Amino acid sequence: MDIAVVGLGSMGMGMARSALAHGASVRGYDIRADVRAAFVAAGGRTGETLASVVRDADVVFLVLVNAKQTEEVIFGPEGIVKELSNGAVIVSCATLAPKDARDFAARVEEKGFHYLDAPISGGAAKAAEGKLTVMASGSPQAFAAAKPALDMVAETVYALGDEAGIGTSFKIVNQLLAGVHIAAACEAISFAKRLGLDLTKVYEVITKSAGNSWMFENRIPHVLEEDYAPRSAVGIFTKDLGIVGDIARELRFPTPMAAEALQLFLMTAAAGMERDDDASVARLYNLIADLQ
Amino acid sequence: MDIAVVGLGSMGMGMARSALAHGASVRGYDIRADVRAAFVAAGGRTGETLASVVRDADVVFLVLVNAKQTEEVIFGPEGIVKELSNGAVIVSCATLAPKDARDFAARVEEKGFHYLDAPISGGAAKAAEGKLTVMASGSPQAFAAAKPALDMVAETVYALGDEAGIGTSFKIVNQLLAGVHIAAACEAISFAKRLGLDLTKVYEVITKSAGNSWMFENRIPHVLEEDYAPRSAVGIFTKDLGIVGDIARELRFPTPMAAEALQLFLMTAAAGMERDDDASVARLYNLIADLQ
Repeated sequence: MDIAVVGLGSMGMGMARSALAHGASVRGYDIRADVRAAFVAAGGRTGETLASVVRDADVVFLVLVNAKQTEEVIFGPEGIVKELSNGAVIVSCATLAPKDARDFAARVEEKGFHYLDAPISGGAAKAAEGKLTVMASGSPQAFAAAKPALDMVAETVYALGDEAGIGTSFKIVNQLLAGVHIAAACEAISFAKRLGLDLTKVYEVITKSAGNSWMFENRIPHVLEEDYAPRSAVGIFTKDLGIVGDIARELRFPTPMAAEALQLFLMTAAAGMERDDDASVARLYNLIADLQ
Repeated sequence: MDIAVVGLGSMGMGMARSALAHGASVRGYDIRADVRAAFVAAGGRTGETLASVVRDADVVFLVLVNAKQTEEVIFGPEGIVKELSNGAVIVSCATLAPKDARDFAARVEEKGFHYLDAPISGGAAKAAEGKLTVMASGSPQAFAAAKPALDMVAETVYALGDEAGIGTSFKIVNQLLAGVHIAAACEAISFAKRLGLDLTKVYEVITKSAGNSWMFENRIPHVLEEDYAPRSAVGIFTKDLGIVGDIARELRFPTPMAAEALQLFLMTAAAGMERDDDASVARLYNLIADLQ
């Protein structure tokens, strides 16, 4: 099984190394030469060009940031559809608008290859452990071709439907909730600080109460430790809640909670924290309320 | 141990019956005669007047809706401070503003009694099982006097500080999160419906993903079953998020997420669903987007 991973950020690197650990032949590509070198140092292989990395692959994971990057890598001047081997499957992991996923799938299938709409969830730590959650949809052929490789990088692979667009729709719903919950967690912990409460006790009580969320439990420790090194950056949520808003507006569906959360992430980005950890929304509240 | 429970709504009734099941002598009071009768049918005792119910009690639980009711019952024309026995403790369970809790405690202590600021969390089902969570603060004497009775109604009693106002502050932070999470859960599930997704699968995937919250997990089944009989009503959150907003404004602290959620609960109430289950916010979205 030959696997290629395009995009070696924290998620892609974790996935590529998990596949290596399973004994697969893995080539990795990233536009950053130092990142490629880091993958080679970890025991992987790379190549000078995108083409050389994907040419012999059975499965190509695209672990990119957005639709623009994904489209460029698949269909651009050096696009991989010109290089892929017979029967190859593209596994697209970015959070895309469902219509982009449908469009990319149709164009890839027209060239004779398979496409799996497969956004990932779980964060960098789970990626490194090979325990991601994948929200996937696509043709039975795409699933069959991708399955052995998916099992190397994921703990859970949800098969959500037989056409592209469904996986990304699930991911969008998840990101709406995740973004709102981060904003709410940050609002609540900074409000608790303003109320003069013992924040360690607040964390202990809330995580055992009806006000708990996965995000409160996961992100508030960053706030308590004042450690805003990016595990997942503010910029991911300005992007993903932007996609939520675009889709909702197109469907004439109101999403006021997601819209308010987006504004908070935009304020946090505008205040200079776009590349910092997404729990930086709490720093924004603390800054506004002079709670440094 | 003589216990009195004032306010026999679903929470108070559950607490009174849990204390009965522990073998305590329990008198219950409610202004509604039929509710008093229901408590007697369940093996409890009552009285025609508030005074007769609290007169011999060591511990008086006030399980009321708000500060106005709580103040009336303690200090009003028929207020219980005129009737209490030596050493009695008032355990106030409503979600109050911290300054009201501090004010009530000071006035109760001035009369020679104890006051425990003890908001409860967990809902009617946990109340019936005697497994509530209590976020309590007050003097060591108030804790000592209330402890045996609290242990009959609660699974967890958090001792959060030695003065009134801290317990309610924790509860307010919890309610901010709980209210935002219900609104977000309802926005997300209705958006998923608009996206044409299989909602049972959405529930399955989200409850195992980073978008999960205690409220999503607990309330979305009401939406999937279209069962809006009130376990906890919309009106509780128009009240509690109103308190959050009042306190925040007084402290000059911005809470845009809580404010947006409050507007959604107010819209749901305005559309005629104030007494229905709080998951009715999803019905509001479905109504607006014609997703009946």
